[in-house]
Amino acid sequence: MNGITLQSSMYSKAPPPLPLVLGWGEQVPPATRFAPLADSWTLHSGARLRKGRIAYETLGKRSLNDDNSVLILTGLSPDAHIASHEADPSPGWWEKMVGPGKPIDTSRWFVICVNTLGSCKGSTGPASIDPDSGLIYGHEFPELSIEDMADAAAQVLDHLGIAVSACVIGTSMGGMSALSFLVRHPGRAASHINISGAAEASTFAIAIRSLQREAIRNDPKWQNGHYTQDDYPLKGMLMARKLGVISYRSAVEWEGRFGRRKLDPTLSLMYSKGQQLYEIESYLNHQAHTFARSFDPNCYLYLSSCMDRFSIKDEPQADLSEGLAPAGLLRALVLGVDTDILFPPEQQQDIAEALSKNRVDCRYQCLPCTQGHDSFLIDYSRFGPQISRFLRSI
Amino acid sequence: MNGITLQSSMYSKAPPPLPLVLGWGEQVPPATRFAPLADSWTLHSGARLRKGRIAYETLGKRSLNDDNSVLILTGLSPDAHIASHEADPSPGWWEKMVGPGKPIDTSRWFVICVNTLGSCKGSTGPASIDPDSGLIYGHEFPELSIEDMADAAAQVLDHLGIAVSACVIGTSMGGMSALSFLVRHPGRAASHINISGAAEASTFAIAIRSLQREAIRNDPKWQNGHYTQDDYPLKGMLMARKLGVISYRSAVEWEGRFGRRKLDPTLSLMYSKGQQLYEIESYLNHQAHTFARSFDPNCYLYLSSCMDRFSIKDEPQADLSEGLAPAGLLRALVLGVDTDILFPPEQQQDIAEALSKNRVDCRYQCLPCTQGHDSFLIDYSRFGPQISRFLRSI
Repeated sequence: MNGITLQSSMYSKAPPPLPLVLGWGEQVPPATRFAPLADSWTLHSGARLRKGRIAYETLGKRSLNDDNSVLILTGLSPDAHIASHEADPSPGWWEKMVGPGKPIDTSRWFVICVNTLGSCKGSTGPASIDPDSGLIYGHEFPELSIEDMADAAAQVLDHLGIAVSACVIGTSMGGMSALSFLVRHPGRAASHINISGAAEASTFAIAIRSLQREAIRNDPKWQNGHYTQDDYPLKGMLMARKLGVISYRSAVEWEGRFGRRKLDPTLSLMYSKGQQLYEIESYLNHQAHTFARSFDPNCYLYLSSCMDRFSIKDEPQADLSEGLAPAGLLRALVLGVDTDILFPPEQQQDIAEALSKNRVDCRYQCLPCTQGHDSFLIDYSRFGPQISRFLRSI
Repeated sequence: MNGITLQSSMYSKAPPPLPLVLGWGEQVPPATRFAPLADSWTLHSGARLRKGRIAYETLGKRSLNDDNSVLILTGLSPDAHIASHEADPSPGWWEKMVGPGKPIDTSRWFVICVNTLGSCKGSTGPASIDPDSGLIYGHEFPELSIEDMADAAAQVLDHLGIAVSACVIGTSMGGMSALSFLVRHPGRAASHINISGAAEASTFAIAIRSLQREAIRNDPKWQNGHYTQDDYPLKGMLMARKLGVISYRSAVEWEGRFGRRKLDPTLSLMYSKGQQLYEIESYLNHQAHTFARSFDPNCYLYLSSCMDRFSIKDEPQADLSEGLAPAGLLRALVLGVDTDILFPPEQQQDIAEALSKNRVDCRYQCLPCTQGHDSFLIDYSRFGPQISRFLRSI
């Protein structure tokens, strides 16, 4: 495990020691815990992964009869630090949603947030060090799939000794890996919340993501994945992230928020020789710079491609309800947003209908948020009560 | 005029001689005619343009009392060859719309299609040769605005000796320059058809276009505009055009047309190390390669920026109807498409309402086409009858 000592007790409150050996692209929050992956594990592609690990954080306390765990699978970019807790009081990426008295109430639930396999936030991925070579995997990392993320999450439950999770929650890409978890590990979840997820990528989403990957690969500094921190494909990452932000938000939000406001009205007649004229350009730039150095480019390429290739259906022509038949759930909540262009609400409706066909007690809600795909990270007034009500009912 | 002989008679049927000196990025159809621009013309930015010319083609015959001219202003990429005619029998970019018996019926109308100022298809632009230096303008071309395109079009009418055009038609960016023409040259058009145009760019459109320009500038071969044919920013242009195609079409069209069909089913588990897996990727690639070498990158940067900066309103808070007040039109037809994300139908509705407030007899129609912004180039069954009916009524 690359010099990493796994925590000796699953109940240990002290954060585990940080791994001694990290690839330079890896950025791991301090309270991260690690579960070992099956050694020489055969991935969905048939490739093998040696001595892998999966990063997670837990919040709240396990009940005596182990019936209160909520497993959370994330989108592309988050780490396992979902919200502040004793071992790491810094705010997490879903701070307003998770905690005592919050919609995902840690005074009742034992929350396990898993960092995606293939990410650079603690779980093994292209930014990790290959135990065989001692070098960073980079572009030589084995072929990865959403199914592997699901199987890795199941191994976190194994590691913790939890047979059945009360609820599996997946957001965005995590909505894909959660569906995969349900059908590949039937019986290991009693209920499910799918937030702005999909059973397979839309054509439009594939188009956008293929351009994001092209932007990174086009950057001469990408060097077929052999970049360094000092010689980093920053321009490619900025372009990829800006494209991402365009697909994560909505035209209607931006019209109201930025409109045509200029950064400097005196520049009004200037031809834009590279300088930014409008607030929207400055916003995109800021968002992109915040992200571009915090996420490993090779990891980005791998996770992005996983989303394109995922489908819960065995055959393209199959009915979605057949693909979801093994899930064996009792109840589900499926949430989408009417301004989402990346995971449009029709996709969540499809999931809900397929679950209902499989006799899952399923509620679907398309929320009228303006922030597009990212709404679940912003519009707590709409998402919070939905999630809270569902979790109180199970 | 760089060795160009302008046609001696405006009624000459023979195509004018091709210009002897062209910048290498300029690509001029054989039947193109040229009108000289006012020498040392002061542009909207205050910069001056020396010895410019504007390219156009004409179809049909002028009536004796000169009341049958239809002036057509185009989107970013087209040249002046709108449809086949005697002097150039090759198909034009709007072949099915313009010709004898077609919606824009050249047995009745004298059609003048203007190549946009700043383009590389015959009109003076960044790809042209600077008469002062003898070198290609490139990135040193004067600052350009939509208003200049409108004024240049008026100079084509001057050159032809036409006082009033029966109808000014503008598509896409041409819808912007047509509105500018109407308010800057009141009384020179009796009616107007605005197709998928806008009175100002939306925030979303600015965002998309700023990324397209960034993609070109990011390409190391762009070299601040000093590229050559042999050392050409192809990757940047491909990326810019792919982004363009994403914004020109629609998710609903692609879902039906390409879905998730793979180019090679055996590649299903491959991590996409640059290769294309899906038909949608191959489609984008093909579309981009068709365009990338046919349009000059510097011209693209200039025209793209013009669209961002254009607003028919003097002040951001002004009412659109004030901006359009000088137009002095009798009748107008405004067409949009419900799947257009780049020039969304709300923008055409705004134009129609503003014209109506100014007592223009204005009809607005939002057409249910699936091909997004590009629908007017494809869906003739919906656009043709609308345009045909309007032109028959004037």
